[in-house]
Amino acid sequence: MLTHQTSYRVIYADTDKMGFGYHANYFRWFEIGRAEMFRHIGMSYKEIEDHGYFLPVSELHCKFLFPVQYDDLLIIETALDNTIRGGIKFDYTVSCENTSRPLARGYTRHAFLDKSGKVVRPPEFFTRLIRQQSGFAE
Amino acid sequence: MLTHQTSYRVIYADTDKMGFGYHANYFRWFEIGRAEMFRHIGMSYKEIEDHGYFLPVSELHCKFLFPVQYDDLLIIETALDNTIRGGIKFDYTVSCENTSRPLARGYTRHAFLDKSGKVVRPPEFFTRLIRQQSGFAE
Amino acid sequence: MLTHQTSYRVIYADTDKMGFGYHANYFRWFEIGRAEMFRHIGMSYKEIEDHGYFLPVSELHCKFLFPVQYDDLLIIETALDNTIRGGIKFDYTVSCENTSRPLARGYTRHAFLDKSGKVVRPPEFFTRLIRQQSGFAE
Amino acid sequence: MLTHQTSYRVIYADTDKMGFGYHANYFRWFEIGRAEMFRHIGMSYKEIEDHGYFLPVSELHCKFLFPVQYDDLLIIETALDNTIRGGIKFDYTVSCENTSRPLARGYTRHAFLDKSGKVVRPPEFFTRLIRQQSGFAE
Repeated sequence: MLTHQTSYRVIYADTDKMGFGYHANYFRWFEIGRAEMFRHIGMSYKEIEDHGYFLPVSELHCKFLFPVQYDDLLIIETALDNTIRGGIKFDYTVSCENTSRPLARGYTRHAFLDKSGKVVRPPEFFTRLIRQQSGFAE
Repeated sequence: MLTHQTSYRVIYADTDKMGFGYHANYFRWFEIGRAEMFRHIGMSYKEIEDHGYFLPVSELHCKFLFPVQYDDLLIIETALDNTIRGGIKFDYTVSCENTSRPLARGYTRHAFLDKSGKVVRPPEFFTRLIRQQSGFAE
Repeated sequence: MLTHQTSYRVIYADTDKMGFGYHANYFRWFEIGRAEMFRHIGMSYKEIEDHGYFLPVSELHCKFLFPVQYDDLLIIETALDNTIRGGIKFDYTVSCENTSRPLARGYTRHAFLDKSGKVVRPPEFFTRLIRQQSGFAE
Repeated sequence: MLTHQTSYRVIYADTDKMGFGYHANYFRWFEIGRAEMFRHIGMSYKEIEDHGYFLPVSELHCKFLFPVQYDDLLIIETALDNTIRGGIKFDYTVSCENTSRPLARGYTRHAFLDKSGKVVRPPEFFTRLIRQQSGFAE
């Protein structure tokens, strides 16, 4: 598993009248987590699109364990399963600085689409990058 | 299973640069689905809160089968599992007028909290309402 | 002035921890207002894009007079200034069913862009439509 | 004028089908700008609320000059007008790293409310903080 950590400060726009982070907004934070992981391993998601590939979310799951509060500095830990088959899967754990307990855990699955919107196999440039990052010999 | 249908028109704000509905926004539509079901069975979610109970999302899942497009008139079918235990679960199917194929399928689980934020058993007024709606004798 | 009214039910996703509608979400409601006005006068915004024109927001203003609450059924009144010059301007008044006082007032200005992103004059099919709706002889 | 700069990376969730940042999302960025300015001058907005004061947006304006793109690293420059009367006003300029031209310019006005929701004069702890930051003798 490749892993990466990034942080995000919860804003008012993220909260709802219960006083906590609204559940749908966690998927913005998941997006930030995987975008920063892509950047960290040497190819931003923007560059993947510039190569003609798109990675829409095909499936998503999240368990909300403890509420997230306004102005919390969240730690988003993103892990990429490097056994790439048809698509890819990211696992996320959201916690808060100063506390180690996870506040939410989830995953997203993504298909590779080409410019015409057809599902395709992960391109060679991508699988090679992941293999390199994972420390396997080519 | 209690079921209810409501509709929602996709706006520009819901879309992303891929040209389709952004995945996190589906959970706004799920919220509309369950809110309108609550209203339909005779007690809006606002009234549940006025009674001192809160129903935050504790778990969420969605499969995105086909993309949703700008200006689509979505049909959100919401089903409430009437075997209420600790919490409640809603199932959702999103489709588009004029086509029968589902575009997305998902569920949300909700815990009952009291005003102090403590997890509690579903209140009697709520379980009675669901039993009545499900046609069971009391 | 062409005017049109549409309604919108405030959801949890629209609220923030202050317990009211978050200010940025009003612009989703403004979008709904102008989209339904376009549809009402016989050409949806989607059709305008299908003709090769885009109407991004170039300027926006809003005064927030009274807070909007969860589950409020908002009435969005949209007015289109029919003196079309370089672009077009919509005025909006947001109120709540059962009360006549306005909760918010704002406007948006929009430029016409062609597919290449260049600012262009409003196309003939559009100005003709507005003139017809405004009851002027051609 | 007190001024402060902070940055924000545009995510997919911020974009719309035109391929650019959706206009309503700029007000999330404005919020980030003023929250980080508050933190920088020594009192986070959360602390202001902890003191029993709320600063809802009472008026808002924005001119969108050039589009914002996915993955842009935005620079949000926030300026606080230190002539505080009934409420306060922030001015914002959004630009992108590597280019100096502004992409958007706007402002927000905020009233001070107490816990009961009544409009009040800016509290002494706040005006003192601003005077100190502005370099005036007390």
